[in-house]
Amino acid sequence: MSAPVSMKDYENSARKKLPKSVWVYYSTGADNEQTLSDNCNAFSRYRLRPRVLNDVSKVNLGSTVLGTPIDFPVCIAATGMHKMAHPMGEIAVVKAAESMKIGYMQSIWATTSIEDVTAAAPDAIRWFQLYIYKDREITKQLVKRAERLGYRGFFLSVDTPVFGVPYGLRTTFSLPPNLSYENFKDLDISDGLADGESKHDLAERVASMVNPSMQWSDIAWLKSITNLPIVLKGILTGEMAKRAVKENVDGILVSNHGARQFDGVPATIDVLREIVQAVDGKCEVYMDGGVRNGTDVIKAIAFGAKAVFIGRPVLWGLAHNGQEGVRHILEMLRVEFKTALQLIGNKEQSKNY
Amino acid sequence: MSAPVSMKDYENSARKKLPKSVWVYYSTGADNEQTLSDNCNAFSRYRLRPRVLNDVSKVNLGSTVLGTPIDFPVCIAATGMHKMAHPMGEIAVVKAAESMKIGYMQSIWATTSIEDVTAAAPDAIRWFQLYIYKDREITKQLVKRAERLGYRGFFLSVDTPVFGVPYGLRTTFSLPPNLSYENFKDLDISDGLADGESKHDLAERVASMVNPSMQWSDIAWLKSITNLPIVLKGILTGEMAKRAVKENVDGILVSNHGARQFDGVPATIDVLREIVQAVDGKCEVYMDGGVRNGTDVIKAIAFGAKAVFIGRPVLWGLAHNGQEGVRHILEMLRVEFKTALQLIGNKEQSKNY
Amino acid sequence: MSAPVSMKDYENSARKKLPKSVWVYYSTGADNEQTLSDNCNAFSRYRLRPRVLNDVSKVNLGSTVLGTPIDFPVCIAATGMHKMAHPMGEIAVVKAAESMKIGYMQSIWATTSIEDVTAAAPDAIRWFQLYIYKDREITKQLVKRAERLGYRGFFLSVDTPVFGVPYGLRTTFSLPPNLSYENFKDLDISDGLADGESKHDLAERVASMVNPSMQWSDIAWLKSITNLPIVLKGILTGEMAKRAVKENVDGILVSNHGARQFDGVPATIDVLREIVQAVDGKCEVYMDGGVRNGTDVIKAIAFGAKAVFIGRPVLWGLAHNGQEGVRHILEMLRVEFKTALQLIGNKEQSKNY
Amino acid sequence: MSAPVSMKDYENSARKKLPKSVWVYYSTGADNEQTLSDNCNAFSRYRLRPRVLNDVSKVNLGSTVLGTPIDFPVCIAATGMHKMAHPMGEIAVVKAAESMKIGYMQSIWATTSIEDVTAAAPDAIRWFQLYIYKDREITKQLVKRAERLGYRGFFLSVDTPVFGVPYGLRTTFSLPPNLSYENFKDLDISDGLADGESKHDLAERVASMVNPSMQWSDIAWLKSITNLPIVLKGILTGEMAKRAVKENVDGILVSNHGARQFDGVPATIDVLREIVQAVDGKCEVYMDGGVRNGTDVIKAIAFGAKAVFIGRPVLWGLAHNGQEGVRHILEMLRVEFKTALQLIGNKEQSKNY
Repeated sequence: MSAPVSMKDYENSARKKLPKSVWVYYSTGADNEQTLSDNCNAFSRYRLRPRVLNDVSKVNLGSTVLGTPIDFPVCIAATGMHKMAHPMGEIAVVKAAESMKIGYMQSIWATTSIEDVTAAAPDAIRWFQLYIYKDREITKQLVKRAERLGYRGFFLSVDTPVFGVPYGLRTTFSLPPNLSYENFKDLDISDGLADGESKHDLAERVASMVNPSMQWSDIAWLKSITNLPIVLKGILTGEMAKRAVKENVDGILVSNHGARQFDGVPATIDVLREIVQAVDGKCEVYMDGGVRNGTDVIKAIAFGAKAVFIGRPVLWGLAHNGQEGVRHILEMLRVEFKTALQLIGNKEQSKNY
Repeated sequence: MSAPVSMKDYENSARKKLPKSVWVYYSTGADNEQTLSDNCNAFSRYRLRPRVLNDVSKVNLGSTVLGTPIDFPVCIAATGMHKMAHPMGEIAVVKAAESMKIGYMQSIWATTSIEDVTAAAPDAIRWFQLYIYKDREITKQLVKRAERLGYRGFFLSVDTPVFGVPYGLRTTFSLPPNLSYENFKDLDISDGLADGESKHDLAERVASMVNPSMQWSDIAWLKSITNLPIVLKGILTGEMAKRAVKENVDGILVSNHGARQFDGVPATIDVLREIVQAVDGKCEVYMDGGVRNGTDVIKAIAFGAKAVFIGRPVLWGLAHNGQEGVRHILEMLRVEFKTALQLIGNKEQSKNY
Repeated sequence: MSAPVSMKDYENSARKKLPKSVWVYYSTGADNEQTLSDNCNAFSRYRLRPRVLNDVSKVNLGSTVLGTPIDFPVCIAATGMHKMAHPMGEIAVVKAAESMKIGYMQSIWATTSIEDVTAAAPDAIRWFQLYIYKDREITKQLVKRAERLGYRGFFLSVDTPVFGVPYGLRTTFSLPPNLSYENFKDLDISDGLADGESKHDLAERVASMVNPSMQWSDIAWLKSITNLPIVLKGILTGEMAKRAVKENVDGILVSNHGARQFDGVPATIDVLREIVQAVDGKCEVYMDGGVRNGTDVIKAIAFGAKAVFIGRPVLWGLAHNGQEGVRHILEMLRVEFKTALQLIGNKEQSKNY
Repeated sequence: MSAPVSMKDYENSARKKLPKSVWVYYSTGADNEQTLSDNCNAFSRYRLRPRVLNDVSKVNLGSTVLGTPIDFPVCIAATGMHKMAHPMGEIAVVKAAESMKIGYMQSIWATTSIEDVTAAAPDAIRWFQLYIYKDREITKQLVKRAERLGYRGFFLSVDTPVFGVPYGLRTTFSLPPNLSYENFKDLDISDGLADGESKHDLAERVASMVNPSMQWSDIAWLKSITNLPIVLKGILTGEMAKRAVKENVDGILVSNHGARQFDGVPATIDVLREIVQAVDGKCEVYMDGGVRNGTDVIKAIAFGAKAVFIGRPVLWGLAHNGQEGVRHILEMLRVEFKTALQLIGNKEQSKNY
């Protein structure tokens, strides 16, 4: 195979290189995968209207997320267990993000701890994706560790009170035995080990807990234990966005969890405008879901997103050749976004086109 | 083949296990099968809008049909001749329904009599699907027997004054010789046997009669001979639903007969709202047609149905491995419905999402 | 192959039985065949809304065309050169129509003369499709002959001032040498034979003439030479229908010439309502194009057509086994139409459903 | 293969005859090629509404572009490097245009100079497509040469401040070594050769320059150095069309650059009406993109275009057999357009149908 020159090439390479079970884990969506395919297809429902004959010799690609400048408005979404895709795992990904000067959102289910990620890429813009566990002490310890390590904010997943089961994963999936959920390894958990449970088992058990009783009042609690910005990840309607604004969140990530949890929810680009309008400037709005080209980025920005996040494409680049692959994915999107910005005729990013 | 984990798996298994003529009989729709495929596809025209951060640790899956509580809002629709799919036939199906605490609607064309079904599953919630025959005595005897056996209501088919011929059945179909329409076997039919006709032949003849002169005034007659609730099965428009309400029916089953009779009628989910609005709370509304996932159930409930009924999936489970297969089909829908309810963020079933 | 039981079966049989050039001639549409496929597909854009619980034990299938009763509202459209499909050609078709008591529209390009058709099926309801030629004498002779033979009206083609070239016929098509355009054989043409032209050649030449200068004033002329009813064949817009009414025509056949001439015009069922509304009862309206099922007939009747005409299906039946095949095609549509009428719950044909 | 009788035949022939890299260069569109396929498909969203019974024995196919009469409203769009398709290259194309009495737009990237093109076809209606380079002297020399050679106007490309990269060209494309950009060969460029650069290298370098700082004020400059008409090529919105009118341009070519630069922009036929309405008669409007049939031409003319331009079809004809192929392509469109005009019932071209 010749060197990949497009997202499709990377996807095809990853499909070939990854063990089948890992490929299925990464690529699958919920139920009939209607929303999975719609996430990508929905972009084609919107048309670009170029302004011609502006001077576009200089364009400003930069944006900011939660006050931090990024070189271009594409950041890395939390996806789990990167060591399944490449031995360097999360380290490869965060270093690619660092080198491109864009943001990296670490998954709570990382196979590398936030400490090791920080040590490997101290200058990277890092955020931490997490849940509020029933045992709030767990959440508190994770928050405090992230604060000490210079993480710049939290993306709280609000769309998974329970797990939906992706169609391809109806048969059991489990983390390969040589890997572990590193963020939970050294937790000092108040209720301790269960009978006959090793510390490694405990980490897996805790990681797999989600909290069906999580509710709006938990946001206030989270704000009470940290001054870092908080973004709600997984909002899909204007009503929920307005409710989030009431809690004084710093941002909303419009996301359907990569269409992995709940088939039948809208494609994210289809609800982005509704949410931006509902928020009315009172917090930042980002989106993930189906972004594959620079023109997808343009459309999200045009609808009011400060940045987009990419998930599966990062895994494809990682599977192909680690840090270099992830970096190339980002470079392609950067070049395509720049070209799109010039072809649509905007010197400055703006939602006015 | 590994154990089935989805509706699709069961459908594929049934396609392989059943004799071709039986598969064709079960799977076929009328004419071009436009409505057949639309019944399923139509669900994807509606999008789910999740409410996040509600406490969904406890959700109530239950509903009621005609006053009888059911554990979750999926019941078994009348489909014919179950012994063609599995030797245990209707017995396997009703026992699966009994074990899951949901309702079982018995077809008039069952290959097991209502007496035998009742003996096998006395605690099952049972309803009886029937026609009003030209010879009302036939209907009366069926009604009286069902009453004595503890059936809880009647689903009167109003959409088949004549039979449409499913495309795949343009060549002759006939019941295998070792099976018979058991509900008609012991009828005491006033006009007796035709010349040279055996009692078995008579049962087949009567079963195959439908009544093109059935009309609204027949509803009043049926109400005059029984106090059990009456549901009209096969309503597809708001006008007809309003007319049914005038007759003081207890419920309406929005159904297009599995798209077997009349190609070109709407997908049921597409007309459910219209009918719920027309009925305006004056009787219960249910639907069948194309339900394959928990999210389909959620959508039907959201549009105002008290319960959905499933037809072909039951036959697939039955063909795969009898009672166990039917039970697994129901369990999958139960789990999926519960997950969907939690992911859409509703503690209580409600049409308000 | 087993005996055909559907339109699709007949189409497949014809594809196999006919010489390729003849199959291409009959099946092809103009350019990209967008309108060709749309003619059929458009029917699926309309949904049937059944009325239940009417007494449909007796339904009246009959209709009238230009005052002549027909047994059910499906007639035979003019299609050319039937002897290419079967040695009995037009004779087989008209006898099938006669036996089913529906109308037969004879093509000007028939390979059997109107005299021979009349002799073979004197009781058939016969109409004659024609053009107004530049040499009006030709048209006049044809009209007078048809009048003498008991034809009941004329369908004047108004949609072909020139021929569009069906895509599949860009290479030359010509009538097989053993056949001829019989209606032109004995014309007494005023300007006589061209140099070296045989009478047979002359017939072919005249038949292939169409008249690009035909105009509205020609209708008045045609009315001046005959008292038989006149139907305009090939109207596709409300404006044209209103214009036709001004000329006191007796009927309008909504038709796009089987999508053979002009790709990109609307499917006929899509414009039928517009035309019926424009006509406002001032003449009869019929349609052809894409009718393949009884439900298609129901939809056309519901939109206000007095009858539909079928073209290609007749050729398929003819190719399969002559008169018997054509008759079976008609019988299938009759049964399907009757069933559809009963399932939609109408005792009488009416556009009110 | 038999002689081609349709666009599709020519496309298939070109696919077979051309070296793969050339075929990819000509046929590819940007990114996912959504706009590429939409350019053609969009035409099928519009339906033709025939007027019948007009005298169409005489129809006027002619139109004018920038005051110059053309025999029918189909001209040749600028496409690059014709010698890659056929040894006679641009000469073959311009001679075909000359023989058909329609206009020829020469690409700045021609492999034949405007001098040689003019010598070969002095009577052809010739226009010149160009850019305004940063070094305005280059543009000025090109303009002056074209003026001297009798070119009748300029099509200024305004949609390519930078190059988008067609998906199929992500790997490097370069002009075959035996060809060169002839229009740049004899430029007298003020800043001269770079170190070690040959004159041939210089031509390639200059040709590959586009100017991201090009802006509206450049139009005034261009008008200041020439009295020939100026058409802006690559307008896709009504806003831009209005802005162009303010600069007193002579025409607008609605174009998305053959969908090669910017995926996600609208199909040209979809925006043509918007632009014609915005322009409100103050300059001429043309379109290119997806024209393959006479009915496509009819639709563009009906929406207000004075003429359409064709790109890839010319390359297909050229690849098949040079001048003869291009001429046949044009002849097919001429015949199809004439037929369409007669079938839609218009004696005169008019946007009123």
